[in-house]
Amino acid sequence: MPKRNFTQSSLYMIFSYKGYLVRRLSIDLIWIVIPTTILCAVHEFNHVDIKMNFTVPGLLGAILGLLLVFRNNTAYDRWWEARKVLGGLVNTSRNYALQVENLLPESEHKNEIIKLIGAFPFVLKEHLRDGVVYAELDFLGEKLIKELKEWKHVPNAVNQLIQRRLRIAYDNKEITDFQFLKLIENSDELIDIMGKCERIHNTPMPSSHSYLLKTYIYVYAIIMPFGLIDNLSWWTIPAVMMIYYIAMSIVTISEEIEDPFGKDPNDLPVDRIAQNIYNNVQEIITK
Amino acid sequence: MPKRNFTQSSLYMIFSYKGYLVRRLSIDLIWIVIPTTILCAVHEFNHVDIKMNFTVPGLLGAILGLLLVFRNNTAYDRWWEARKVLGGLVNTSRNYALQVENLLPESEHKNEIIKLIGAFPFVLKEHLRDGVVYAELDFLGEKLIKELKEWKHVPNAVNQLIQRRLRIAYDNKEITDFQFLKLIENSDELIDIMGKCERIHNTPMPSSHSYLLKTYIYVYAIIMPFGLIDNLSWWTIPAVMMIYYIAMSIVTISEEIEDPFGKDPNDLPVDRIAQNIYNNVQEIITK
Amino acid sequence: MPKRNFTQSSLYMIFSYKGYLVRRLSIDLIWIVIPTTILCAVHEFNHVDIKMNFTVPGLLGAILGLLLVFRNNTAYDRWWEARKVLGGLVNTSRNYALQVENLLPESEHKNEIIKLIGAFPFVLKEHLRDGVVYAELDFLGEKLIKELKEWKHVPNAVNQLIQRRLRIAYDNKEITDFQFLKLIENSDELIDIMGKCERIHNTPMPSSHSYLLKTYIYVYAIIMPFGLIDNLSWWTIPAVMMIYYIAMSIVTISEEIEDPFGKDPNDLPVDRIAQNIYNNVQEIITK
Amino acid sequence: MPKRNFTQSSLYMIFSYKGYLVRRLSIDLIWIVIPTTILCAVHEFNHVDIKMNFTVPGLLGAILGLLLVFRNNTAYDRWWEARKVLGGLVNTSRNYALQVENLLPESEHKNEIIKLIGAFPFVLKEHLRDGVVYAELDFLGEKLIKELKEWKHVPNAVNQLIQRRLRIAYDNKEITDFQFLKLIENSDELIDIMGKCERIHNTPMPSSHSYLLKTYIYVYAIIMPFGLIDNLSWWTIPAVMMIYYIAMSIVTISEEIEDPFGKDPNDLPVDRIAQNIYNNVQEIITK
Amino acid sequence: MPKRNFTQSSLYMIFSYKGYLVRRLSIDLIWIVIPTTILCAVHEFNHVDIKMNFTVPGLLGAILGLLLVFRNNTAYDRWWEARKVLGGLVNTSRNYALQVENLLPESEHKNEIIKLIGAFPFVLKEHLRDGVVYAELDFLGEKLIKELKEWKHVPNAVNQLIQRRLRIAYDNKEITDFQFLKLIENSDELIDIMGKCERIHNTPMPSSHSYLLKTYIYVYAIIMPFGLIDNLSWWTIPAVMMIYYIAMSIVTISEEIEDPFGKDPNDLPVDRIAQNIYNNVQEIITK
Repeated sequence: MPKRNFTQSSLYMIFSYKGYLVRRLSIDLIWIVIPTTILCAVHEFNHVDIKMNFTVPGLLGAILGLLLVFRNNTAYDRWWEARKVLGGLVNTSRNYALQVENLLPESEHKNEIIKLIGAFPFVLKEHLRDGVVYAELDFLGEKLIKELKEWKHVPNAVNQLIQRRLRIAYDNKEITDFQFLKLIENSDELIDIMGKCERIHNTPMPSSHSYLLKTYIYVYAIIMPFGLIDNLSWWTIPAVMMIYYIAMSIVTISEEIEDPFGKDPNDLPVDRIAQNIYNNVQEIITK
Repeated sequence: MPKRNFTQSSLYMIFSYKGYLVRRLSIDLIWIVIPTTILCAVHEFNHVDIKMNFTVPGLLGAILGLLLVFRNNTAYDRWWEARKVLGGLVNTSRNYALQVENLLPESEHKNEIIKLIGAFPFVLKEHLRDGVVYAELDFLGEKLIKELKEWKHVPNAVNQLIQRRLRIAYDNKEITDFQFLKLIENSDELIDIMGKCERIHNTPMPSSHSYLLKTYIYVYAIIMPFGLIDNLSWWTIPAVMMIYYIAMSIVTISEEIEDPFGKDPNDLPVDRIAQNIYNNVQEIITK
Repeated sequence: MPKRNFTQSSLYMIFSYKGYLVRRLSIDLIWIVIPTTILCAVHEFNHVDIKMNFTVPGLLGAILGLLLVFRNNTAYDRWWEARKVLGGLVNTSRNYALQVENLLPESEHKNEIIKLIGAFPFVLKEHLRDGVVYAELDFLGEKLIKELKEWKHVPNAVNQLIQRRLRIAYDNKEITDFQFLKLIENSDELIDIMGKCERIHNTPMPSSHSYLLKTYIYVYAIIMPFGLIDNLSWWTIPAVMMIYYIAMSIVTISEEIEDPFGKDPNDLPVDRIAQNIYNNVQEIITK
Repeated sequence: MPKRNFTQSSLYMIFSYKGYLVRRLSIDLIWIVIPTTILCAVHEFNHVDIKMNFTVPGLLGAILGLLLVFRNNTAYDRWWEARKVLGGLVNTSRNYALQVENLLPESEHKNEIIKLIGAFPFVLKEHLRDGVVYAELDFLGEKLIKELKEWKHVPNAVNQLIQRRLRIAYDNKEITDFQFLKLIENSDELIDIMGKCERIHNTPMPSSHSYLLKTYIYVYAIIMPFGLIDNLSWWTIPAVMMIYYIAMSIVTISEEIEDPFGKDPNDLPVDRIAQNIYNNVQEIITK
Repeated sequence: MPKRNFTQSSLYMIFSYKGYLVRRLSIDLIWIVIPTTILCAVHEFNHVDIKMNFTVPGLLGAILGLLLVFRNNTAYDRWWEARKVLGGLVNTSRNYALQVENLLPESEHKNEIIKLIGAFPFVLKEHLRDGVVYAELDFLGEKLIKELKEWKHVPNAVNQLIQRRLRIAYDNKEITDFQFLKLIENSDELIDIMGKCERIHNTPMPSSHSYLLKTYIYVYAIIMPFGLIDNLSWWTIPAVMMIYYIAMSIVTISEEIEDPFGKDPNDLPVDRIAQNIYNNVQEIITK
């Protein structure tokens, strides 16, 4: 089980993340800097007195702050729910393998079931990305891979193949009626876990929320200089950029972590988890 | 499984949503603009000095902000709960179909059960709208549709028809006592999911909350100009309109997403989910 | 299933609610208005300069705002939990009736069980109010009502009577050991639902919270005028009244919705839900 | 089921609670009053101008406010979780008694089981206080009490005694294999409830949190006068006392309700709940 | 069951914690003090007038406050979830031991099962630290320890050994099919608990969050002096240090409690809980 490595990841983040965010936000920042600079120039050279105190930007800022917190919390909640679901995948796979190992006598279909249990996390993670990568599933053997390739929804296929083999064991009287249904319950749980992953992956925030939040941040960045310019003159430009950057960095991170099954630096270690499950299942059957 | 298409939906939202919100809120805005304009005119032409600083609008604004956050969060929680319930519908339907496929021998009632499982999501979604659309259920065949038409509460009917056919299978000794009850449990879960959807659909926020929030926003929009006018003079009008618009856009979106089973742009993709379930069930039985 | 009727309920609320709150809060308001008026008079006629800026009322206002949000959220959480529990009552009753209908052969005790399932919601709702109204239970027949009248805790009695009849069916070998226990599980769930309703009904907020919150609002309303009077002079009176009214309206609504089983306009539609369950159960057995 | 008696408890709280809090906080208040008074005296008689505006106390106040909300919410969450767990105790006990009553034939061990179920809440509540009070358990009879006295962990003992008697019924073939395990499941739930109560009782907040919060409130109360004194002069003393009192009253109430199994006025009505369970169990077996 | 000992732990915390935090944060504080001091010196000796009011630091402070609350709440939620999971470990272990004690006849494998149940908490806690400490497991006897040493994932091994012995009991017809699967369910729950602990231990916060929060606090501490210096002159240095210290103490405590299985003063009493479980299991089997 890998240890946390704070300093290393922290250093990595400082360089990769700052650069990453700066890159993503730099084009937006231009659109904020231009009107602010014009305003500063007008104010400085024409000595136009901008009669606005800070009350309107202050009010808007409070509403925006609350919307940012909402955005941040809901994104984190999804990320953490996704982590819980993957934790459930680890547990269910271990349990399933342990039970099959202890209940079924040695046979070809038993081996295939355990292989399929170990394959499910690999299949699921790529199903949530661009499609199943059969190269990861070499250990299944050609026959099973050929069967899987006939299906569109491969994770469903893995469960169907497992259940068919359990049915064979039941028909051969290797397990009782009751044991058969107990084993099937684990498949139900795997389907449940898959469904939860699909839900998190396929349901972005209500688009009105993410659209309005971005619009309001932009509007806010346009209005804010009017409230600052009398005090800060040219310093208004870095002040507005900084506040815009901080607000948008929260939005950007939220967008990344709310669908955590990809390969971005903030995503969950899905590949490592799949490999761990495979290792645990292997250890259970070889001992 | 459809991919997220951020840019496309985002562009769509910018045009459709802005227009949509502006249309919905434009009549209200008139009632805000008129008193504000009168106040500005009085202030500008009569040189009446309005002796009010920003403390009272500031205090009210803080309370309103917290109520808006509350409104937004509860609406989002319902929307997300509805999404979870629909995810549960996907899983339970897949499981039910897989189990029926693997436990029952081929027979007419088996085919009917699987058809009915595939029909349930269609029936449920229209039950939550204006009533069942039998055109979507062609695949059931005339006999089953005729049976369903005798019922008022069609989703209950679908479950009753499934359970009757399971009873036949049990009476024919095709499944054991224990298997029969395990299969029935899936029906229980479908009824549970339906109940949760009905709960979300039929329970608006306590009306005192939604009524008072709107009243307070209006009162606030009437009082706010007194605090702004000494600084902003005529700019008070757009400032008040903007803050009112932002507050009401949060209320309006909350009202839309708290009952997410309709056909508005922010509602959940209920039709697509029903179709997905139907496709999954079809794939399970044809392989 | 009744549709939401926003406009109608909204209009109703405007008149009934405003009046209702004004009536409830009017006596309190007098105790706020008198000291504020005295302060204004002293300030205006004696030209006493009250040397206090807005910092202390501002700090207190922030703490009060957070306590009000806490009060509002916990009350709403209870209301929504109560709604979930009643939704569970709908589902469990439907399931119970469906299962009894499909598992037991026709007999007198079967009919009685289904009647008792339909009676449970009526019994429960009045148990949470002032005591069971036997007039609503006419459909049970005199014999069953007489049995129920011997009990103090009538919802427990309904479950006991159901379980006794299931025991008879079991002793007559109409159902197997396993089926008997599955059916009993539904009774367990009904008892569970009843327990949750009793918990919400019998547990007010920790009294220290509700007492201190009201005290602090009152203290705040006494202190606030000192911070406002230099700016607002006589306008202090309506300003203080308005802020006090808004704060107390949140407290008052919270007190109402945290015990939602009564007959107030904000309470849950308990009677309609009970009637719906009865109708659904009737439809299940007559088809 | 006792009704809520708001006015009565409210009056009681006004006198008992205010006095109680004043007593608990009075010594602390002295340590706040002394430095504030010295500061006021220096400011007033030496005419030292304290050059500090309100920004630093304002910032600290905001952080403190958020920490107070956190403290308040987590304490309430525990209180409410404890209430839910006790509600679960009511339901599980009722169910257990109903099932034993309906499944087992009359016998001595049946009577003992039902007595032990009724005794569990009494045993549990005192286990969470100072140790079991055998005087409350007279109804068990001397023999059972003697058996219980041999154990250190008495709630575990009650469950062990129940399970042994169920084992006797099973060995006598009074109940089937399946029924035996269903009944045992209720014991598992009682143990689960006990574990949750122990968790809430034995786990205070991370001590860093409660220590730092108190320290920060004290530091805040020392710094705050510097921001207020220029405006309020001698009125600084009551202002600081009031804000300190309000902050500490939230902390004090939180400390009380986060371990709600005691006998303080804010604790849960544990004794009444135990008595209610006993009465319900009695009614079930005598009817 | 140890009592809460507030005063003692409080005193301990005052000395150990303050020192601990000061030590951890002292190097950081230097990097804050140096630029602030330079700024003060420039301001004081050159009489440069820094034209910045408090609006920008105020806005940033609000965003930071909300991020700190988010950090604090998520860390506490993990800590409390970890506590719940350990509570579940206590309950499941007690139940497992009670059931094995009551269902299996005396035999060598029964004794071994109960020993292994008592060993699981010790194995789990060290698995979450640096690896299993076999010295704590002396009571298992050499034979079992030798078997465990062959495994990499020792908690999985304990469950596998338990299940093998249950299989022996099942093959010897000491328990029925149904009882066997009920007992196995407890092992599933132990694996579930282990998985949850591993999830909390292995998943730090999204690194973007913890990195950005620290960066923003630092940026804030650099900007804040510009807003304070006109009012506070040299007092700016302690003011900035204090606010930085409070913000960083929240971050530091959050980092500690979000992985609560270690041996820090804020971590959960994992060792004591493991010992308690062992004692309870011992009491159950010796009575």
